[in-house]
Amino acid sequence: MALLYKSDPTRGRRWQALFAEHAPDIEFRQWPDIGDPGDIRYLLAWQPPEAIETLLPNLEVLFATSAGIDQFDAEALPDTLPVVRMLDPSIEQGMIEYATFATLWLHRHMSDYVRQQRRRDWQAHMILPAGERRVGLLGLGQLGGAIARHLKGYGFQVSGWSRTPREVEGVTTHAGEAQLDAFLGACDILICVLPLTTATRGVLNETLFDRLPPGAALINMGRGEHLIEADLTKALDKGRLSGAVLDVLREEPPAPDHLFWADERILMTPHVGAMTQPDTAFPVLLENLRRHQRGEAMAGRVDRQRGY
Amino acid sequence: MALLYKSDPTRGRRWQALFAEHAPDIEFRQWPDIGDPGDIRYLLAWQPPEAIETLLPNLEVLFATSAGIDQFDAEALPDTLPVVRMLDPSIEQGMIEYATFATLWLHRHMSDYVRQQRRRDWQAHMILPAGERRVGLLGLGQLGGAIARHLKGYGFQVSGWSRTPREVEGVTTHAGEAQLDAFLGACDILICVLPLTTATRGVLNETLFDRLPPGAALINMGRGEHLIEADLTKALDKGRLSGAVLDVLREEPPAPDHLFWADERILMTPHVGAMTQPDTAFPVLLENLRRHQRGEAMAGRVDRQRGY
Repeated sequence: MALLYKSDPTRGRRWQALFAEHAPDIEFRQWPDIGDPGDIRYLLAWQPPEAIETLLPNLEVLFATSAGIDQFDAEALPDTLPVVRMLDPSIEQGMIEYATFATLWLHRHMSDYVRQQRRRDWQAHMILPAGERRVGLLGLGQLGGAIARHLKGYGFQVSGWSRTPREVEGVTTHAGEAQLDAFLGACDILICVLPLTTATRGVLNETLFDRLPPGAALINMGRGEHLIEADLTKALDKGRLSGAVLDVLREEPPAPDHLFWADERILMTPHVGAMTQPDTAFPVLLENLRRHQRGEAMAGRVDRQRGY
Repeated sequence: MALLYKSDPTRGRRWQALFAEHAPDIEFRQWPDIGDPGDIRYLLAWQPPEAIETLLPNLEVLFATSAGIDQFDAEALPDTLPVVRMLDPSIEQGMIEYATFATLWLHRHMSDYVRQQRRRDWQAHMILPAGERRVGLLGLGQLGGAIARHLKGYGFQVSGWSRTPREVEGVTTHAGEAQLDAFLGACDILICVLPLTTATRGVLNETLFDRLPPGAALINMGRGEHLIEADLTKALDKGRLSGAVLDVLREEPPAPDHLFWADERILMTPHVGAMTQPDTAFPVLLENLRRHQRGEAMAGRVDRQRGY
């Protein structure tokens, strides 16, 4: 019985060592050295190989190395193949760090100070107490909920929106299309952590920006395709939005002539919100493998219909 | 009986309203309209007026509007005049926000990403788990201790150094010159929150930088005079330090030809770590005024000998 790994090779060596030490009954193979394909029951991948059904006839589970699985071509996967998201606590930790950084960057005018330094301008901006700053999470799944709870600890007024009702202690929550207006109207800083589905593609668009308070700012930690990029430029140009932090872009890396590179109102980072760390992800993966072997339900199993 | 306020006029109006509502027995006067100087028992100031002993013959206490009091000319103050630091919880909150921002800026390579964006370079840097990043607080007073506890919550390895021994839960603490080497040798990110005294002036110098691990980074939230600025440039040039975040400079604003303006390895902010907010500072000040009136000890009283 073997597991095939197809993702970052450097981290692959660490995964291999962890399997050798803690699960020697599962043979670890690293793409492209797949050996006898018939042995492979598990696939751990950022992107599955093409023609997976033919290539790996005995595959039982596809484990993503990431929290999101929109990079998978759902059409190319057998309908009955279980797909499992990565629930590595390092992803949550990384996303909390990134969201906190980006929120403080906007809350404390740091984007202004970076620009001012280049102009040799020493001008202080008033500090708004955190209790007067409204931060909203668009998406309240495991990550959105964790970020909301964490930012609440700074004293921010935190609210959140999800498709179906969710509760997060100390956080005002809204659900469904009917409550979206109320949610957006009270977001000085909007953080998108939605999964990418046909329903959420392009959700960050002009119509949504127009429902935010004037001068609001955007943080996109979801996927590049959540954002209609031209609408962001327009909203910044007309002063509807004051700034943005984007960890994801529609095309990564963006084309050399992409407008965002030179736009000082936008801070772009190269999709580094979080990274799966083998040492913290391994115990979660192994627990799922063992559950599968015992015929129990796995944590993070994707609803193929819903797409996350 | 009157209190004379001499600081930012905008916030002065808020202070006035708070006194009118909660302490009508203490008349609030705002500099330069001091009225009959003989009435003035209390002075609340960022900078006291000149010739204070002659100008305000019945002054009983000088309250600083700031946490640090090094901007006062100690020589010009009567020896017996009690001086009290501001212990506004908003200062602590502001400093925690700033320290977290600056730590995450360095920890998550954000300075690199800002520079890369300008060069249209989309290169990700590995994320070091917080548990492998060592953050050290130089200064473990009220603010240093609060920052240390807060950063510990992210999982960083946090240590601290103070002149006299202090304990902070979950934080490795060192004290005195004898333990300074051990402390500095384990700081990937060093945060200075020392008070400015004759003993700490110029403490951030080449000798200290050489005792940090190679590639360490500096955050100065103390005072500009803690840092020998030419030594920072030298340490960055020779790669001994990898970057710095400075909220305070020797001369504020720095001269237009100051080297730091154009140094991309340094993020400069215009002394905005924290601001006293009248709404949160007022209850603390009023409690001290009442204690003084009852002949009790005031919180935050400065040891005039020690200087903080």
